[in-house]
Amino acid sequence: MRTQPFNDAHRLFPSEPGTRAIASDLYDRVAELPILSPHGHVEARALAENRPFANPAELLILKDHYVTRVMHSRGVGLSELGQGDEVSDPRAVWRLFCERWHEFTGTASSYWLTQELSQQFGISGELTGADADVTYDIIEAALASAEFLPQALFNSFNISALATTDDPLDSLEYHAALRDGGQLAGAVLPTFRPDAYIDPASPDFVSNAKRLLGVAGHNSTTFSSFLYAMRVRRDHFIAHGAVSADHGVVEPFTADIDSNEAERLFQGAMRCELDVSQARVLRGHLLFQMAKMSVEDGLVMTIHAGVFRNHHTPTFAKYGPDTGHDIPVRTDFTNNLRPLLQHFGAEPTLNLVLFTVDESAFSRELAPLAGFYPSVYVGAPWWFLDAPDATQRFRSAVTETAGFYKTSGFVDDTRAFLSIPVRHDASRRLDAGFLARLVAEGRVTMPAAERIIVDLVDAIPREVFKL
Amino acid sequence: MRTQPFNDAHRLFPSEPGTRAIASDLYDRVAELPILSPHGHVEARALAENRPFANPAELLILKDHYVTRVMHSRGVGLSELGQGDEVSDPRAVWRLFCERWHEFTGTASSYWLTQELSQQFGISGELTGADADVTYDIIEAALASAEFLPQALFNSFNISALATTDDPLDSLEYHAALRDGGQLAGAVLPTFRPDAYIDPASPDFVSNAKRLLGVAGHNSTTFSSFLYAMRVRRDHFIAHGAVSADHGVVEPFTADIDSNEAERLFQGAMRCELDVSQARVLRGHLLFQMAKMSVEDGLVMTIHAGVFRNHHTPTFAKYGPDTGHDIPVRTDFTNNLRPLLQHFGAEPTLNLVLFTVDESAFSRELAPLAGFYPSVYVGAPWWFLDAPDATQRFRSAVTETAGFYKTSGFVDDTRAFLSIPVRHDASRRLDAGFLARLVAEGRVTMPAAERIIVDLVDAIPREVFKL
Amino acid sequence: MRTQPFNDAHRLFPSEPGTRAIASDLYDRVAELPILSPHGHVEARALAENRPFANPAELLILKDHYVTRVMHSRGVGLSELGQGDEVSDPRAVWRLFCERWHEFTGTASSYWLTQELSQQFGISGELTGADADVTYDIIEAALASAEFLPQALFNSFNISALATTDDPLDSLEYHAALRDGGQLAGAVLPTFRPDAYIDPASPDFVSNAKRLLGVAGHNSTTFSSFLYAMRVRRDHFIAHGAVSADHGVVEPFTADIDSNEAERLFQGAMRCELDVSQARVLRGHLLFQMAKMSVEDGLVMTIHAGVFRNHHTPTFAKYGPDTGHDIPVRTDFTNNLRPLLQHFGAEPTLNLVLFTVDESAFSRELAPLAGFYPSVYVGAPWWFLDAPDATQRFRSAVTETAGFYKTSGFVDDTRAFLSIPVRHDASRRLDAGFLARLVAEGRVTMPAAERIIVDLVDAIPREVFKL
Repeated sequence: MRTQPFNDAHRLFPSEPGTRAIASDLYDRVAELPILSPHGHVEARALAENRPFANPAELLILKDHYVTRVMHSRGVGLSELGQGDEVSDPRAVWRLFCERWHEFTGTASSYWLTQELSQQFGISGELTGADADVTYDIIEAALASAEFLPQALFNSFNISALATTDDPLDSLEYHAALRDGGQLAGAVLPTFRPDAYIDPASPDFVSNAKRLLGVAGHNSTTFSSFLYAMRVRRDHFIAHGAVSADHGVVEPFTADIDSNEAERLFQGAMRCELDVSQARVLRGHLLFQMAKMSVEDGLVMTIHAGVFRNHHTPTFAKYGPDTGHDIPVRTDFTNNLRPLLQHFGAEPTLNLVLFTVDESAFSRELAPLAGFYPSVYVGAPWWFLDAPDATQRFRSAVTETAGFYKTSGFVDDTRAFLSIPVRHDASRRLDAGFLARLVAEGRVTMPAAERIIVDLVDAIPREVFKL
Repeated sequence: MRTQPFNDAHRLFPSEPGTRAIASDLYDRVAELPILSPHGHVEARALAENRPFANPAELLILKDHYVTRVMHSRGVGLSELGQGDEVSDPRAVWRLFCERWHEFTGTASSYWLTQELSQQFGISGELTGADADVTYDIIEAALASAEFLPQALFNSFNISALATTDDPLDSLEYHAALRDGGQLAGAVLPTFRPDAYIDPASPDFVSNAKRLLGVAGHNSTTFSSFLYAMRVRRDHFIAHGAVSADHGVVEPFTADIDSNEAERLFQGAMRCELDVSQARVLRGHLLFQMAKMSVEDGLVMTIHAGVFRNHHTPTFAKYGPDTGHDIPVRTDFTNNLRPLLQHFGAEPTLNLVLFTVDESAFSRELAPLAGFYPSVYVGAPWWFLDAPDATQRFRSAVTETAGFYKTSGFVDDTRAFLSIPVRHDASRRLDAGFLARLVAEGRVTMPAAERIIVDLVDAIPREVFKL
Repeated sequence: MRTQPFNDAHRLFPSEPGTRAIASDLYDRVAELPILSPHGHVEARALAENRPFANPAELLILKDHYVTRVMHSRGVGLSELGQGDEVSDPRAVWRLFCERWHEFTGTASSYWLTQELSQQFGISGELTGADADVTYDIIEAALASAEFLPQALFNSFNISALATTDDPLDSLEYHAALRDGGQLAGAVLPTFRPDAYIDPASPDFVSNAKRLLGVAGHNSTTFSSFLYAMRVRRDHFIAHGAVSADHGVVEPFTADIDSNEAERLFQGAMRCELDVSQARVLRGHLLFQMAKMSVEDGLVMTIHAGVFRNHHTPTFAKYGPDTGHDIPVRTDFTNNLRPLLQHFGAEPTLNLVLFTVDESAFSRELAPLAGFYPSVYVGAPWWFLDAPDATQRFRSAVTETAGFYKTSGFVDDTRAFLSIPVRHDASRRLDAGFLARLVAEGRVTMPAAERIIVDLVDAIPREVFKL
């Protein structure tokens, strides 16, 4: 370690000196602005309970499936990485990670971790197995200090708003406690995520639907009661500050069917009698209904499409979900979303943010859709694409058709709490670099770029997510 | 406005100084060459009648669905933008546009309009609502002058040949008038566009087919009479200077079926009795027949594939087509075009130019097809892709497999007459920049680049479009 | 010719001077390292027989379908290029090629040939028709010299290991002769390529399967005998040094079916009674079985997916395969490979290298698959993508998700023997340039880059291909 000043002030900017200077000027205008994080996976409970992080491995490796999947791909068993019910020795995990650090070179995780280690713990340069105990001790000591408690970190990160992702039946007690506790300098907002309640092919669909129907306080099990119960829970979320509802789907298929057909399919689903194509129609209709509710109650609708979850069944069976084998597939938005957009695409109360991990959709479908429909915004690069080069490809693919104002602003979408500042900083640097290139090429004026770099961090996410 | 010299001599060139200098040298060789515009949507009638443009809004905003769609995507109703039968106050529209000018930043339209305003009207820098009346007055005054009449502009643009796009039953009287009038320094050529006559799923197919059969002067309604009538009209176009026939399709599907099957399907179509898959086969066979005719009569065949037209039915119902909601879909060329290419791909009289808005097809399908079949050329970046970054991605994706000589040369494909010079200039700058990078990287010699930059503007479009 | 120093020391590096300097430093560390070529199409027989190359046209044009297809695409008949049974005058072919040299500008072949001509024959600058006889004579004279005999070239190229591609029933006598002859400074390894034996839709499937069953020495024609015979031949290859088995498929579809079903389908295939979907299942199951054998015997499994072979039937009928009209199609890996990966993706003895010519799969599917499954590696850019810009797009698409250590290292995959050094040199330059950019952008430290540039050329291909 200690061989290279990674926290170079010009990192992530284009290397051509003229363009770099413009990027630096633009970046300086937003470097210190507060963080808006309108979608992510930090848990309200952890913030509310404010317990210290357990140890360096738990904090930086074991809970981050971006990191564990790379180690797994190089032959490290998930058991060694404390996945599922396995227990692992954190110091041994850390050493293993340090020994394999060069295998992360060039990945997004490598950049984030390098910056976190440098900025949070003063550890610079390459990690090595030889230094593993030293670095472990440095981090462990820091985690024991008051300034590394979750709430203290939250405040030091200058977060203005942070959204969590929550089950529709969540009581949201921790959100209430955080709001009432007054310890945080920013808001923690729940997000309504009904995936497990609107996919009739999910093994838990029937039990989830019954629980949902139950909380509505009716004995009825009709489709309209189901929709009513959904609205009740959305209202509960809105009362706790929610601004959006999120939907993870393999395909963004939507279906507009009449209420009799919907009732028939819903009852079939409750009896586990739907075939694959019937389940698809009901799933598509439920997504359609979610859009309708967003039109009515104003929750921003976000769709994360195109990921085949839990691709490796043996790993899922042993270690559960979110263990690194969710793999993207091709995604069609133009045909699949048409029923939804026919009805709601021009509704002034709907904001629909579309996320993809199929890059070919950016210029082909998402930018043209966002470049016409008032409701549609192109979501920031997501998951595998939330990285420097992919972010530049995203801006390059989208901007020439849809400009900057029909994109979502940066979304960190992370459960790695410590990475939030570096992720937002990276986004600001990359957008500054992209704008700087357009300025250097005579395509954007400096005053326009100066306005846009600020709007990307502030006005745009506020508008898109109704913050 | 007036804050930035946008008409910088080095605009659109790479920012690295060494590469920029090479680009500048290459660009200088073609900057003043005449414009060849072998495919576009300027109307012959407007040129022949030579009436002044109505006002700044009509000229620059209301007729350009690239511009109106972006404003619509930001919540401006199409009624406010004078679409369909709506009437709008041009000065109010211009002000609205100026107020929202920053929302166009980074789009292709922003670049074109900036250059048009600067070069045609001397208006530089950012448009703002505060300046809207001033800029409106400047443009309005210019439009009243003789040098802004369509024919004067045509001549000042140094256009050598300009193709329009026309209905097969068009009399082409305006083309004849322009040819005989002797006012234009360049040729205006019709283009045969039979889309509405060869899609059996089109609501007007039957009436269109009947009209077409009628002009052939037969009472017969057989498929061969239909094809005969099509040939008669193609000959009419050729007699008026047409060099190409253009085909817009969702998928470039082609089908080689025998004449009995074709007759049966055609008669079914005339009785509106085809199901979806039968209509697809007939549509594919008609495209196949169009290729056969191109082999016979020499009209260049252009195919624009992969756009779902009129995606938002309520907008189409109220405002008609070309109102900004044509959205691309994935496109397969390799399988779909195979029947056509099996028969005609090696015919020396066929030039087949393939355009896509699905970028993933460039390196995967179009460059390999053009890199083998003598008839096939890769069309220039089209529609959403006719923009600086997308153009660089196109050259990068295509050149390493197919070189420069199997691409079409620049095609502006525009109905925005005033934008023609800046679009061609942008293409020349971007190709100069692309070649300059290859020279700087030691992949192309300067003499080769000097030849190619000229051929791209002159020899290549002349060969591809038989000009 | 002779106008431009093409063998510029900085060729293929980024043009920005700071980045270029870093690239140059990195490249210097690997410029002289031995070549590992773990997959390609050089013939063992030609090396063993060690006969002189016939003439310049045969060496550089007629046997290279990358070159002949570009000439064909510009109207040169394949008969003129000595394809199939045609005989052509080599000097006339060379002249035709030189006259059309500018049409290759920007292609990968143009770069390789320029370097070969310069480094092997001292011919620099543009080829022209006027110089054609001069350059022909220079090359012809060189080919008559002892240092241009295949074995001498092999040794001068500093090849440490070169894999050929061979029919499962090949005796491998030439490999044995090369190993025993002791003339070569490096190893020549066979590769097991069973395509023609595992596609039931292939016209020769039945006769191939019978021949394969025959060599196993059984009278049985059961599916398990067929699999046994396949294992016998794999063992024969392993005994002759093979490290991998290669599979070319249109789609990487795999199927896990029970042995009764497999037997039933196999017997149906032997009676030519399978319909399209049954043939697909059997083909997918045979690919599945090939993976199972790789788990058992350790042969690295490579899959080259997504090419529609022999697209133009008239050309295939007249000139045979590998005549330039193999055209890529879209490729799905996530769904198609799942049955294989469910069973074998985490097997420590399996190395599975996935090659694509559908670039959209790199970031969407291949990097995520390689970033989780220990067995999966992303194959180097292949075929149409083995070119400077495409290689940079590959690294950009893959690295941020999967790093460098889950890619295959460079694979030349060529039958153009003389191009091997320049192809490997180009790969080293391009990787140096890619790493240099990451260093310049503060994303990779110089020590990490220095390690990786060497590992990419040495440790990584050794690990991936078990060399």
